[in-house]
Amino acid sequence: MKNLEPTIDLIINSYKTHGGINTAEDQDLPNKQSVVEILKDVQSLIFPGFFTEELVNSDNLRSVTGEKIYRITKALTRETLRSIGYYCKKNETTCKGETCRQRAANLVHSLIAEIPEIRRIASTDIQAALEGDPAAKSIEEIILAYPGFEAILVHRIAHFLFKQGLPLIPRIMSEYIHGKTGIDIHPGAKIGEFFFIDHGTGVVIGETTTIGRNVKIYQGVTLGALSVHKSMADKKRHPTIEDRVTIYAGATILGGKTIIGNDSTIGGNVWLTESVPPGSLIYNQYSQNSSQKKNT
Amino acid sequence: MKNLEPTIDLIINSYKTHGGINTAEDQDLPNKQSVVEILKDVQSLIFPGFFTEELVNSDNLRSVTGEKIYRITKALTRETLRSIGYYCKKNETTCKGETCRQRAANLVHSLIAEIPEIRRIASTDIQAALEGDPAAKSIEEIILAYPGFEAILVHRIAHFLFKQGLPLIPRIMSEYIHGKTGIDIHPGAKIGEFFFIDHGTGVVIGETTTIGRNVKIYQGVTLGALSVHKSMADKKRHPTIEDRVTIYAGATILGGKTIIGNDSTIGGNVWLTESVPPGSLIYNQYSQNSSQKKNT
Amino acid sequence: MKNLEPTIDLIINSYKTHGGINTAEDQDLPNKQSVVEILKDVQSLIFPGFFTEELVNSDNLRSVTGEKIYRITKALTRETLRSIGYYCKKNETTCKGETCRQRAANLVHSLIAEIPEIRRIASTDIQAALEGDPAAKSIEEIILAYPGFEAILVHRIAHFLFKQGLPLIPRIMSEYIHGKTGIDIHPGAKIGEFFFIDHGTGVVIGETTTIGRNVKIYQGVTLGALSVHKSMADKKRHPTIEDRVTIYAGATILGGKTIIGNDSTIGGNVWLTESVPPGSLIYNQYSQNSSQKKNT
Amino acid sequence: MKNLEPTIDLIINSYKTHGGINTAEDQDLPNKQSVVEILKDVQSLIFPGFFTEELVNSDNLRSVTGEKIYRITKALTRETLRSIGYYCKKNETTCKGETCRQRAANLVHSLIAEIPEIRRIASTDIQAALEGDPAAKSIEEIILAYPGFEAILVHRIAHFLFKQGLPLIPRIMSEYIHGKTGIDIHPGAKIGEFFFIDHGTGVVIGETTTIGRNVKIYQGVTLGALSVHKSMADKKRHPTIEDRVTIYAGATILGGKTIIGNDSTIGGNVWLTESVPPGSLIYNQYSQNSSQKKNT
Amino acid sequence: MKNLEPTIDLIINSYKTHGGINTAEDQDLPNKQSVVEILKDVQSLIFPGFFTEELVNSDNLRSVTGEKIYRITKALTRETLRSIGYYCKKNETTCKGETCRQRAANLVHSLIAEIPEIRRIASTDIQAALEGDPAAKSIEEIILAYPGFEAILVHRIAHFLFKQGLPLIPRIMSEYIHGKTGIDIHPGAKIGEFFFIDHGTGVVIGETTTIGRNVKIYQGVTLGALSVHKSMADKKRHPTIEDRVTIYAGATILGGKTIIGNDSTIGGNVWLTESVPPGSLIYNQYSQNSSQKKNT
Amino acid sequence: MKNLEPTIDLIINSYKTHGGINTAEDQDLPNKQSVVEILKDVQSLIFPGFFTEELVNSDNLRSVTGEKIYRITKALTRETLRSIGYYCKKNETTCKGETCRQRAANLVHSLIAEIPEIRRIASTDIQAALEGDPAAKSIEEIILAYPGFEAILVHRIAHFLFKQGLPLIPRIMSEYIHGKTGIDIHPGAKIGEFFFIDHGTGVVIGETTTIGRNVKIYQGVTLGALSVHKSMADKKRHPTIEDRVTIYAGATILGGKTIIGNDSTIGGNVWLTESVPPGSLIYNQYSQNSSQKKNT
Repeated sequence: MKNLEPTIDLIINSYKTHGGINTAEDQDLPNKQSVVEILKDVQSLIFPGFFTEELVNSDNLRSVTGEKIYRITKALTRETLRSIGYYCKKNETTCKGETCRQRAANLVHSLIAEIPEIRRIASTDIQAALEGDPAAKSIEEIILAYPGFEAILVHRIAHFLFKQGLPLIPRIMSEYIHGKTGIDIHPGAKIGEFFFIDHGTGVVIGETTTIGRNVKIYQGVTLGALSVHKSMADKKRHPTIEDRVTIYAGATILGGKTIIGNDSTIGGNVWLTESVPPGSLIYNQYSQNSSQKKNT
Repeated sequence: MKNLEPTIDLIINSYKTHGGINTAEDQDLPNKQSVVEILKDVQSLIFPGFFTEELVNSDNLRSVTGEKIYRITKALTRETLRSIGYYCKKNETTCKGETCRQRAANLVHSLIAEIPEIRRIASTDIQAALEGDPAAKSIEEIILAYPGFEAILVHRIAHFLFKQGLPLIPRIMSEYIHGKTGIDIHPGAKIGEFFFIDHGTGVVIGETTTIGRNVKIYQGVTLGALSVHKSMADKKRHPTIEDRVTIYAGATILGGKTIIGNDSTIGGNVWLTESVPPGSLIYNQYSQNSSQKKNT
Repeated sequence: MKNLEPTIDLIINSYKTHGGINTAEDQDLPNKQSVVEILKDVQSLIFPGFFTEELVNSDNLRSVTGEKIYRITKALTRETLRSIGYYCKKNETTCKGETCRQRAANLVHSLIAEIPEIRRIASTDIQAALEGDPAAKSIEEIILAYPGFEAILVHRIAHFLFKQGLPLIPRIMSEYIHGKTGIDIHPGAKIGEFFFIDHGTGVVIGETTTIGRNVKIYQGVTLGALSVHKSMADKKRHPTIEDRVTIYAGATILGGKTIIGNDSTIGGNVWLTESVPPGSLIYNQYSQNSSQKKNT
Repeated sequence: MKNLEPTIDLIINSYKTHGGINTAEDQDLPNKQSVVEILKDVQSLIFPGFFTEELVNSDNLRSVTGEKIYRITKALTRETLRSIGYYCKKNETTCKGETCRQRAANLVHSLIAEIPEIRRIASTDIQAALEGDPAAKSIEEIILAYPGFEAILVHRIAHFLFKQGLPLIPRIMSEYIHGKTGIDIHPGAKIGEFFFIDHGTGVVIGETTTIGRNVKIYQGVTLGALSVHKSMADKKRHPTIEDRVTIYAGATILGGKTIIGNDSTIGGNVWLTESVPPGSLIYNQYSQNSSQKKNT
Repeated sequence: MKNLEPTIDLIINSYKTHGGINTAEDQDLPNKQSVVEILKDVQSLIFPGFFTEELVNSDNLRSVTGEKIYRITKALTRETLRSIGYYCKKNETTCKGETCRQRAANLVHSLIAEIPEIRRIASTDIQAALEGDPAAKSIEEIILAYPGFEAILVHRIAHFLFKQGLPLIPRIMSEYIHGKTGIDIHPGAKIGEFFFIDHGTGVVIGETTTIGRNVKIYQGVTLGALSVHKSMADKKRHPTIEDRVTIYAGATILGGKTIIGNDSTIGGNVWLTESVPPGSLIYNQYSQNSSQKKNT
Repeated sequence: MKNLEPTIDLIINSYKTHGGINTAEDQDLPNKQSVVEILKDVQSLIFPGFFTEELVNSDNLRSVTGEKIYRITKALTRETLRSIGYYCKKNETTCKGETCRQRAANLVHSLIAEIPEIRRIASTDIQAALEGDPAAKSIEEIILAYPGFEAILVHRIAHFLFKQGLPLIPRIMSEYIHGKTGIDIHPGAKIGEFFFIDHGTGVVIGETTTIGRNVKIYQGVTLGALSVHKSMADKKRHPTIEDRVTIYAGATILGGKTIIGNDSTIGGNVWLTESVPPGSLIYNQYSQNSSQKKNT
């Protein structure tokens, strides 16, 4: 076997040459795997009995719940501290150890305290799935086997943390569920109750999107930006979807000024860059555009 | 650190308020992770030597196979019992412990006994992949690195269990492979031999779809429903694809009465809600629809 | 419980009947899980401090790096040997034990020696992501939470091994990241520096694709083949994308002779099977094609 | 390979033939491995920061402690319930589900509430070790590397549970630490403060032993019974050791009526079956008994 | 950090210099950890329901048992093959691959077939423990928390394999349980039914010892050899203990010609190198030998 | 379930009350489990191929060895730093971060560089075992299944670190192997080549013991101190054993001035507190001391 030392030296040197892409000295980033484990714990806090082997009953419910909350608190505080500490250094603000810890603790506690509200909204999303999909056989099936429902639940958690100004962790959460479901919702997006995504693969919902109540979207729908200049970073770049809108598979709706009015239906593969009034029905006229060559 | 007790109490209370989304007292749902492990074991039973570190040879083949079958039998019987037990309670049918166990044991045994047939059909799917993709270099590559092939194999397992009336578990299997491959096939879909899905991300195949032999489909193809009213739940809502049909990427075919006749070809991004006769070639006339602005 | 022995015998027999889909006697295939672990180790070698719990600083950097390189070398040599050994047997070339080991060792060493160059190119890809996405907040966010960036990085590793003629392992790597991100890049594709894929779900880039520098593509873009006859296996079947081209979501570009000239922009959902000159702007005229029925 | 079925049948049959040594139908015994894990958790609750990777500081102390207590409570309640449930069945007492749970919960809570007292006594044992062994360099060394100290600590936990009438679990704890240290203390033994065991291998302390304060014993000391008739099961069968006694290696003291008076010293390998008054010095006259054959 | 390469080279070189203590080229020794896992599986086969989390009942007993037997068969055959293969090479006997496999398979099968008989004998050992220890509260306590019982059980397994001529594995088993209990029984020792070891730490029972039925021994008893010349290796070097003998703590009995006759009792710390007739009571006269200095 | 908060508070408070037995704020002790893992790695570095599943051959020897050395270096440097850092704080010496790291790195490197010498001495110990035990069948058996050999090997590693002045870690190592084998050797003891301990349970060898070459000792031998006053801590308190001495089971030799001359033999259970000249044979006259009551 070759002597590996010269190669080791070359790689060490390359850490200096392309230094911008290294973690700085002793810098402590949030750990992806830990964030995912925490997220799973939060999910099982929201739906006790669904994601663990352990049986839950009225005797052990408080003990099981208490343990889970303490475990989440401990782990999420650690990752939050890393995330905030990292951020402080980056922006050279003064952020003393103690204040960072305090902020992390408060932020984590506010998430725990939000759980009952997240549970309430999640029950509206389950309602929407039950009504929206004839194949749905039970609440349990939706919780266990609907990727759209799981993606929305994770989004509601990540969005809460995003609103508190926590960097990195919400994005790690949204990328985890994107990888798992193919549904890519930026944690900045605002989404109303009774939301349902069916199948979901390929759905993209951008950072400044606003979605109302009782909206239903299908696989491959993009709610995106028209322009991607860095100068746009703080502006509304993604569309607004009002209440009771349905958007079928593959439709693309772009632009921060684009508003889809209440009670509209957007057909499959439609491409929209302008607002439509309430009650619109927008379809492509595909059949006319196809050149059909039959065998006869 | 804050006293977490009041927050724990609030969450416990919320379990009562939004009770519809909780697991009932001591109710025992099938465990997602266990179902996935069983599925992997079944895959390795179907293709011995592909998914484990262990070498397989004629000396140890029977011992290795016997162990695997006993392990699958034990674990799948446990999960099946949970799945059936859960179902019994939900629908308030009388289902005594013993009869449930018997039914679970029979159901699991019937899957094991079906393995040779599943292997036979899988060998036709491999044949279809080898012929359908110029980049395919060997049978081994297809088994190890073709997500379309894996999704079809899992579907054939899940579909068998679905036909036996087993709730939840087939859906957990199909969602697992959906998450892994981006290919969403409802376990209810009926799919013939020599089936091939290339690339696959975004494919959706609905519950009442029927697919014939020697069909080939590409990424982003949807075989879906036109209408999503709950009242449709027991009717055929998804299309029928006859033999030797090819459907290119992004095509959408909708409706329970839509039949794609034998030997037809459906082009990329085509949108179809009506039947086409055998031998049809259906393409969009995209080039004409594009407004090209050249720099000159 | 039923006597399982007759069923075991039936399955053992089916291994003989459908023999083409079994691993041969004692044949040793590369192990998927091991290849994925090695890949993660290589990623953490490229970005020290990002993918492990462990803090990296100037004191322990050489020791941590040396350990990682030795670990990768040992494990990848083992899998490479399996991959080559398997290939030798398949093609019945004479390949004695020792020469195979030598070849495996050299191949692995060449990958390690390539790491500094892969790091250099990766830093251009990060630059492209930072410039291309207004929502990107930091280099760290890109490394931790951009699936497009991770898919490109894995591709650059897999492509290097593919060029060396290593079978199976590059495909296992590309399928792993396909499953994780929904981005399917064949390890044969040639891709220039400063490459950016946004969102990414559903992207397909075929084996003989060539992509220039500073190219940006969105989710659902297909760079595919027009024809899929086996006779085409050794020919260029996928398009060429020249420098500074942007391709929006859902666009499909097909064919080995199709060239997208420098500085062109291809709009969303465009379908292209012919070349376009430098500086082209190609859009669909969707709005005109839609039949809008408003409420009024 | 041979058909294993007949052998399986023989073993199944032997479960019936030698039925007394099987677990009855669905009977649920406490799990050894779980009990050991709980014990380790309790140890780390008593000495925070000694047995885990995690740093403990004033910021996270309450969160870390709370989590540990909840985890112990949950797991120990489960094992206690199994232990009590098993006991109830064995002795055919009436013990309804709910009362059993209540009793288990109370028992576990009483152990948690005892932790401060166990800590107080443990600090006296550490003091005794520091004073008793010239080689002891620090409190930390005693906690981390003195098997005698660990065995006493585990005994104090097991003894508390034994006093509450909990069957099986205290014995599993004492056997665990016996296996780890070679020190065999029955959980029934009563042991005063400032107790020290040096080296410890081979020490045996019987069920009805009573040990005072400031006692020091060495390896191989036996405090045992003279008679082992079953009829003695409820009587005091093991000796009483009063305050400030030292017992050197290999000494054997037997019998329920044997009392070693205050401030006595028992020499190495002494064999005692009768009481000695306070202030005794008991040594063997070994040197006289040896037949020395020198080379000269 | 220092360049470690020269040190690596020195160590590599030392492998050559002190070559006698290295594993030869590609030589495959039985793996200690695997042997221990197999042993635990065999224990749980002998006492179903005692050593696993899983509940055993009449419904799943055959499935659980069958799985365990297949798993043991597979794993033990692999380790046995290593053990035999290693032995063949060492002694340069001709032992072709196939015959080795056959021999391994037969040897493993004979152990499985012996399980009912081992269970029968184990039930006599439990009976002896129940009768011999007033502190023993139940059969379950003996199986779960008596190291003497576990050591005897492991010995009965190891002894069976030792009799079949299997090298290394029986010794790995006996050392495992020696480490766990402090009881060192060479797998060659012949031990009759109804055997009981109380406490056990420090017990040593040599290779050619013979022990009759209904024998009881205490901690620290040695049944050893008088002479340790290599020339003695094939002769009887250790004592014979006849039926119904009790040997108290710390007694030492040495020599291949030493026979302890039926119904004898050997007192604590007695040192015996000659035979004693049936019915002997042998005690040290300790009390007379002690020089007692009282305080008065 | 009871509200656990008041109990949590009581325990938190007890951390303050009995503060001497807590880890100080953020103090970082060496981790027991890590030290044990490192020790196992060092053992497998000394005997490649004995303690891992992996086959070692001339092709992969350097790669496997290099990886192991880097892994040990990294992990042991971390634990050493904790151990030194802890010591610095305790003794309030000035020890800046950088110097500590330097010292840790040098200390670890010196151990790695000592491996060839440790291997050389270990080969003499194996020789001694082979010659000393008629039951020993091969070198491999000694390495795999002789607890005495393993205890000596660990002692040679721990003693080297002890001589370098490293606190805590050598004691953690010696306690680990004490727990595993029942052999308690203080890392300070000086032990010559060709050392053999047979059976070993209960052996105690004190901190200032000196043992020559070719010494053989049996189970239960104590080489201890006469006096245990703290004032003795820096003096020689334990005996000196010269070359070619054999000490049989249960013998006790005490005192720092006690010297056992060359070529002496000390019989079983002998109690010695004074020196004996070279060539002594010291035995107890047990048979005369026994009161034998025969049945006749």
